[in-house]
Amino acid sequence: MTHKILVTGAGGFVGKHLVAKLEKKGYTVSQSVYSPTTDLTDFAYTERLIQETKPDVVYQLAALSVVEGSERNAPQILTANSVLQYNILEAVRLHAPGTRIVAICSANGYGLVAAVDTPIKETCPQRPLNPYAVSKVTQELLAQEYYLAYNMDIVILRPFNHTGPGQTPNFVIPALAKQFVSAERGEISEIVVGNTATIRDFTDVEDMVDAYILAGEKCKSGEVYNIGSGHGVSIHDVIELFRKVTKIDIPIRIDVGNQRTADVPILVADNSKFVAATGWTPTIPLDKTIINVLDFWRKQ
Amino acid sequence: MTHKILVTGAGGFVGKHLVAKLEKKGYTVSQSVYSPTTDLTDFAYTERLIQETKPDVVYQLAALSVVEGSERNAPQILTANSVLQYNILEAVRLHAPGTRIVAICSANGYGLVAAVDTPIKETCPQRPLNPYAVSKVTQELLAQEYYLAYNMDIVILRPFNHTGPGQTPNFVIPALAKQFVSAERGEISEIVVGNTATIRDFTDVEDMVDAYILAGEKCKSGEVYNIGSGHGVSIHDVIELFRKVTKIDIPIRIDVGNQRTADVPILVADNSKFVAATGWTPTIPLDKTIINVLDFWRKQ
Repeated sequence: MTHKILVTGAGGFVGKHLVAKLEKKGYTVSQSVYSPTTDLTDFAYTERLIQETKPDVVYQLAALSVVEGSERNAPQILTANSVLQYNILEAVRLHAPGTRIVAICSANGYGLVAAVDTPIKETCPQRPLNPYAVSKVTQELLAQEYYLAYNMDIVILRPFNHTGPGQTPNFVIPALAKQFVSAERGEISEIVVGNTATIRDFTDVEDMVDAYILAGEKCKSGEVYNIGSGHGVSIHDVIELFRKVTKIDIPIRIDVGNQRTADVPILVADNSKFVAATGWTPTIPLDKTIINVLDFWRKQ
Repeated sequence: MTHKILVTGAGGFVGKHLVAKLEKKGYTVSQSVYSPTTDLTDFAYTERLIQETKPDVVYQLAALSVVEGSERNAPQILTANSVLQYNILEAVRLHAPGTRIVAICSANGYGLVAAVDTPIKETCPQRPLNPYAVSKVTQELLAQEYYLAYNMDIVILRPFNHTGPGQTPNFVIPALAKQFVSAERGEISEIVVGNTATIRDFTDVEDMVDAYILAGEKCKSGEVYNIGSGHGVSIHDVIELFRKVTKIDIPIRIDVGNQRTADVPILVADNSKFVAATGWTPTIPLDKTIINVLDFWRKQ
């Protein structure tokens, strides 16, 4: 068992959950949390971080993660996400070349997937539909390059949608939770959503960080793995779950202005490669996740 | 026939040849040549350029093109090549959405190709082996995104190796030509090269710019095309051609220090998709290209 872990992007939604679970499991965890002086786009900082922590495993979660509106922030997203990924890979190559890197990429990279390719296998072509998704594929290409060119120990993960307490309401389930809590308080009389026909594969953040830890322990270097439940749920069905658990019957208004220019209609994982490698099985059903996210918003 | 053409990266080796040929064919050509005030990584400049030229076709050749040593310059290359590509696509989307963009990407993106995948079809997975090649795949992903998300008129080209007078001696044929000319002058008594077993698909730059022009006229939006002769030649065979045309028998020294960390062993195009779309056939044999490049270096 490896013991010294570095989590980059540890200040983000998933990073916080991952650090908590790693510590609970007895790992020694170092964290890199963004600040102007701890910025992974600065190579000197990244080198110091790797030299000082000499980790057995790096969980590389750092990224600017704006999806909606990523057209406007594209230069910043493309620059930061490629440069920080390069800096981490290069610093590990120079100062800790035996370190395992678990590179957290994204199912968003699949983009426009043909119906015949659903559920999505890792061999499906990546056709990203927004600059954020392009930047995540670039992160993956860099990780793959360092595996191919330097034979470094690198595992690439493509998580599908995941959610839980603490995720920003830029994402659909926290956005709905926030609105249903406002409805419970009598503050609003309708719920506004984008396209309800969109189908996604949701995993609870606790199951997702379990998957990341299993990947660090069991996956094969140079390989790419989808992580997702394997079950598709429409946003319409997600709303029905919210109605069921809140017992609130409230009108839904679909606002196309809320929709991205090019939305991915369906993203469902074929998770068989990852399950075969690790034995992972998600344990938290979506209605339980929704209850947890609602409880989070009730406390805000 | 379209008439107003914009060539970005017009100050580069291929850009100069492309502009000359377009003008010879009667097109009206605007050029964007890099300077601190005409920098495509500056969105305001890029917007003005598109607004003022309103081209029918943009040939997007702009890129930082360092291959060797791209590990050291990686942050600059990744940043510049992604941001300038985004700026051009976004400026065209905002100000001239009917414009055709011919996005010049690179066969370098294929990287580590399995023997079974040679000659390379467009469907071959891209596994780039250096940050420059990663940046060219990122340019391609952005171009594809603007086609998929906004239905813009975008053709993606993956040129294989091409050379001719004016190319820098960072590339193998000018490097050999420069050395053979030095040998003719009695300045050196051996030729130094990297790995002579490497196999490449060489096209004369004049045939290559013909291909770019045909792509602008005839290729299908949203499609990706390989451009190359379809014939593989080892660097060993290239050296034999140099010996034959110069009639100089000089020892060859292989210097592994000249080799990239991860060199692509074989890159040969399956050009059938592009040939079927355009009728293109390269007309200049490699020995003639070598003679032209030698003549260029004899004048230096």
